[in-house]
Amino acid sequence: MNYVKEPKTIEKNSFEIITEELGDKKFDEKEGKVVKRVIHTTADFEYADILEIHEDAIESGIKALKNGCDIYADTGMVLSGINKRVLGELGGQVCNFVHDEDVVIEAKKREITRSMVAIEKAMNNKNIKIFAIGNAPTALFTLKEKIEKGMPKPDLIIGVPVGFVGAAESKEIIKDLGVPYIVTNGRKGGSTVAAAIVNALLYMI
Amino acid sequence: MNYVKEPKTIEKNSFEIITEELGDKKFDEKEGKVVKRVIHTTADFEYADILEIHEDAIESGIKALKNGCDIYADTGMVLSGINKRVLGELGGQVCNFVHDEDVVIEAKKREITRSMVAIEKAMNNKNIKIFAIGNAPTALFTLKEKIEKGMPKPDLIIGVPVGFVGAAESKEIIKDLGVPYIVTNGRKGGSTVAAAIVNALLYMI
Repeated sequence: MNYVKEPKTIEKNSFEIITEELGDKKFDEKEGKVVKRVIHTTADFEYADILEIHEDAIESGIKALKNGCDIYADTGMVLSGINKRVLGELGGQVCNFVHDEDVVIEAKKREITRSMVAIEKAMNNKNIKIFAIGNAPTALFTLKEKIEKGMPKPDLIIGVPVGFVGAAESKEIIKDLGVPYIVTNGRKGGSTVAAAIVNALLYMI
Repeated sequence: MNYVKEPKTIEKNSFEIITEELGDKKFDEKEGKVVKRVIHTTADFEYADILEIHEDAIESGIKALKNGCDIYADTGMVLSGINKRVLGELGGQVCNFVHDEDVVIEAKKREITRSMVAIEKAMNNKNIKIFAIGNAPTALFTLKEKIEKGMPKPDLIIGVPVGFVGAAESKEIIKDLGVPYIVTNGRKGGSTVAAAIVNALLYMI
């Protein structure tokens, strides 16, 4: 059988097809790279319309990554999808605290979810400057609550939970925090989308 | 802020919304569970049209899982998304061999990709009965080549690579192997879709 086996060629051809099919839809160069990588990951052109990128988001994210910041991912799937080799070369790593023993104990003691305690732990970690939330609306709700209570603001929130209950709302309420954000308006998103956005930033550096 | 924090309630409400919005589209009970879990994972109703489930696929997959089979996942993201607790209770585990030292050495020696050697290794492992391929069209091409050369057939191929080069074609060519399959026709799919299909089967047991 004849098929393209070379990953770089597959990726190059894919981005050419995406650019062509986007047709008249124009983005500035850096926004376009985020949008196209998300479409590359989903084969879903609707993301060209529902991705909303705050004007400072890409610069703020890239600056943080260049400084070797860590990233908090809300699930193992997001963590798994981020290019840890490239991130590591910049001095950063991806963290997820949901299964940490201290988080489990604390959540039980305070009778709140582990996701909520994990977000608090991440916000107390000074090297975590980017939150990549692909699944849990409650992670975004908690981020908002804690920032409004005075916890240090991150440099970028990637807020792309997917779903039918709370997902769309959770993405709306992080837009007024004074924190640069990249969201997918509406129901769509997910772990692959969150990881694709982080990787798009990494590949611009 | 008031928001639903209880995962079981969120999931129940989500499936009710999905069922309502599917409207006139009817599936048999088990197929519907697969379709709805994929839509739950993607918020994309197009999957109701592009999921193709071979008539023996669900029964064959469930039987293999009940017998404690292992699953081969083509990437860490697919591996990460599968519910390993439920799978473990049945006696199974998820494997990915792409980073194994023996695979790396063998691929270099034979000058072929690690993905291809990893698939061969998986096919030689008698306890792997299900292949969950969410990313690599080359994994499906390799599966076809090896089965046609006489390697033992798995009980189920979940073939849902996403992409613009080779993905759609790779899903077509596994339909004539005499192996039950679940695919997404066309470009869409991905790690979250592959994991959702496996989880839908696990939750039916």
